[in-house]
Amino acid sequence: MAGNNRTSWNVRSSDVAKRAHNPIRQIVDKLKVDPQAQKSFISLSVGDPTVFGNFNVDQTANDAIYKQLNTFKHNGYGPAHGTVQARDAIARKFTTPEASLTADDVILTNGCSGALEICINVLCNPGQNILLPRPGFSLYRSLADVKQVEGRYYNLLPEKNWQADLEQMESLIDDNTAAILVNNPSNPCGSVYPKEHLEAILAVAAKHHVPVIADEIYCDLVFEGNTFYPMASLTQDVPILSVGGLAKKWLVPGWRIGWILVQDRHDVFNKEVREGLLNLSQVILGPNSVVQGALDDILHNTPQAFYDETIKQLEHNTKLSLEAVSKIDGLKPVTPQGAMYMMVGIDIEKFKDIESDVDFSSKLVAEENVLCLPGQCFDYPNFIRIVITPPAGSLTEAYERMAQFCARHRK
Amino acid sequence: MAGNNRTSWNVRSSDVAKRAHNPIRQIVDKLKVDPQAQKSFISLSVGDPTVFGNFNVDQTANDAIYKQLNTFKHNGYGPAHGTVQARDAIARKFTTPEASLTADDVILTNGCSGALEICINVLCNPGQNILLPRPGFSLYRSLADVKQVEGRYYNLLPEKNWQADLEQMESLIDDNTAAILVNNPSNPCGSVYPKEHLEAILAVAAKHHVPVIADEIYCDLVFEGNTFYPMASLTQDVPILSVGGLAKKWLVPGWRIGWILVQDRHDVFNKEVREGLLNLSQVILGPNSVVQGALDDILHNTPQAFYDETIKQLEHNTKLSLEAVSKIDGLKPVTPQGAMYMMVGIDIEKFKDIESDVDFSSKLVAEENVLCLPGQCFDYPNFIRIVITPPAGSLTEAYERMAQFCARHRK
Repeated sequence: MAGNNRTSWNVRSSDVAKRAHNPIRQIVDKLKVDPQAQKSFISLSVGDPTVFGNFNVDQTANDAIYKQLNTFKHNGYGPAHGTVQARDAIARKFTTPEASLTADDVILTNGCSGALEICINVLCNPGQNILLPRPGFSLYRSLADVKQVEGRYYNLLPEKNWQADLEQMESLIDDNTAAILVNNPSNPCGSVYPKEHLEAILAVAAKHHVPVIADEIYCDLVFEGNTFYPMASLTQDVPILSVGGLAKKWLVPGWRIGWILVQDRHDVFNKEVREGLLNLSQVILGPNSVVQGALDDILHNTPQAFYDETIKQLEHNTKLSLEAVSKIDGLKPVTPQGAMYMMVGIDIEKFKDIESDVDFSSKLVAEENVLCLPGQCFDYPNFIRIVITPPAGSLTEAYERMAQFCARHRK
Repeated sequence: MAGNNRTSWNVRSSDVAKRAHNPIRQIVDKLKVDPQAQKSFISLSVGDPTVFGNFNVDQTANDAIYKQLNTFKHNGYGPAHGTVQARDAIARKFTTPEASLTADDVILTNGCSGALEICINVLCNPGQNILLPRPGFSLYRSLADVKQVEGRYYNLLPEKNWQADLEQMESLIDDNTAAILVNNPSNPCGSVYPKEHLEAILAVAAKHHVPVIADEIYCDLVFEGNTFYPMASLTQDVPILSVGGLAKKWLVPGWRIGWILVQDRHDVFNKEVREGLLNLSQVILGPNSVVQGALDDILHNTPQAFYDETIKQLEHNTKLSLEAVSKIDGLKPVTPQGAMYMMVGIDIEKFKDIESDVDFSSKLVAEENVLCLPGQCFDYPNFIRIVITPPAGSLTEAYERMAQFCARHRK
């Protein structure tokens, strides 16, 4: 009889479980919220528009879910990559004359995070590299780390509305570059790229034959004077996996409905990559079936007034935030053009006892009970990210406290 | 300026995407359903009780969802491993005097598949091995293959109501054995293990200090005369990750709500494994938030009559299936004790032109438009698996056709 040589319990976690860290958590754990604080807690830290009660899903979506529940027809397993009805609803919503889509080009996933995981997983082998934006959403790095894919960072330039440094981006590309990830509109920057800049990025991708993963979860959340261009609508050559979901535009991040659009005019991804996408989606069997059943109604029957109201509130809050933060000596906001975020530079030299962005956030929450994430959460020191979705009153109060805080700590 | 040497597009899928195959699909793809068939199509193949309309979720669940939708308070991101309310509801439901649970011992996942993925992922490194039941649910093998973990198969013995061959199980264990996976009640067997057999498996695990993953998704779906024992209630020594979900007992597989219960009386999993579980759950941010909000109502307020009715229908269908299939010369059903399945042995020698279980299923669907999965889908040739959830009328019709089919093909 076989067996092993163990004489006691010694159960360890796997290497991948150790690698699967959340880089934000390590930083945020240092920012202690004081439950005894005299001032009320104001969070400008979580990219979740639903927490304050001022951004609610449209009733259309709730009614659509309830309608589907009562048919009792959407409780079973559908195809792992989503029902054909749900995929067709998405294809019709996102098809453009330049980049037409059918249900076969759509894969449903567990939220946009799930979509990003599958995209990185299908294109990148361990040891290869992927180009990621800096500053950028920390999940990109987490997913790459888990898969032992090297994240290489191309710089976004605050002085150019966070456009990418194309020359530096190009210098990162080598034979092991499996993909370029582009996030537009951007978390944490709030930037919205003009057509020309997206075309310039696509030219780099085309020149080096590197496919693009386009994180377009903030699609259409753009302010007056800006336009959102789906990357796929600007190229016939570069194959793109474009990811999105219900989370932001429809204000239901917790519903965990994401998707991948396979945008590929010349069949570069071919049978192999498409099959790889299906294989990977089959491991976990797709997102909630009831929401899939309601997706056609949610995407196509939500009234325009709902979307307009979201943009109106976001623009109002952005304007208010820019005005208030611009007046604080030592802080320098970069004007957002969309999404839900504003990056604010900290002029460390102006402060007598602030050592870094982490120190700024840490002291701000300790003294004023206002929490915002330090730029290091996005690989970008000396900035803080402000979430602009709280109600205007809370934002105003937070900025007043921030002004007092800065005045106290300035040289 | 750097770059690469690519002169054309050559985008390949990653190795992991190629490994992430669904072994059932390759087999089922050979079983062609004829859309022109004269006889109506009867599927005895899908382990999804909702497809026929005779097993519906209780209204309690639908009402609970709608109630939560209308609070607008469950649309955001909760903790990645589930809200404390949802985890507490699960802990209260599954706690036993021998194995008490708190919310801290629960991790919510995207369905029970998601739970299994995390369990295998947290305990097994590539190159290690995991003991899996044969016959067994094919996802176990898929998940192990994706992670490059070797699946080693312990035999379940049909003549002993599918109990494990303990001696052969023990012979598979070596220094690289990371876990033993036990599925009770079983898919595809429909077996429900008595207390003594579960204790005997636990004794093997304890002797060799190998933790157990207990797939208990069919918990409580047991027929008269049988009892379901949670494995964790039978041991104080062996650390167990027990997985379950809403899919089967609550009849909503598409809702994708699963969970892991960390059952560990002597802190063998310790901080490292628990942290690994949290790390892995954080990559994808947990299941649908609205269902999480409704979980307390679903688990604790669904009336007993609902559960009783499910068992009653399943027992009725099992009795009907056993009677009908027992009469077919050449087929030998193994009496199910629970779950939703019946395994049926094929006496290949009795047939003149049936070469294998795959051949049996293939010809059965071609000639009679009745589909059931061949045993090879569960690594168990010369059997077929019958799903006993279709309405009694469909089952009766299917078995009549099966009898005619066998008569035609018998020597």
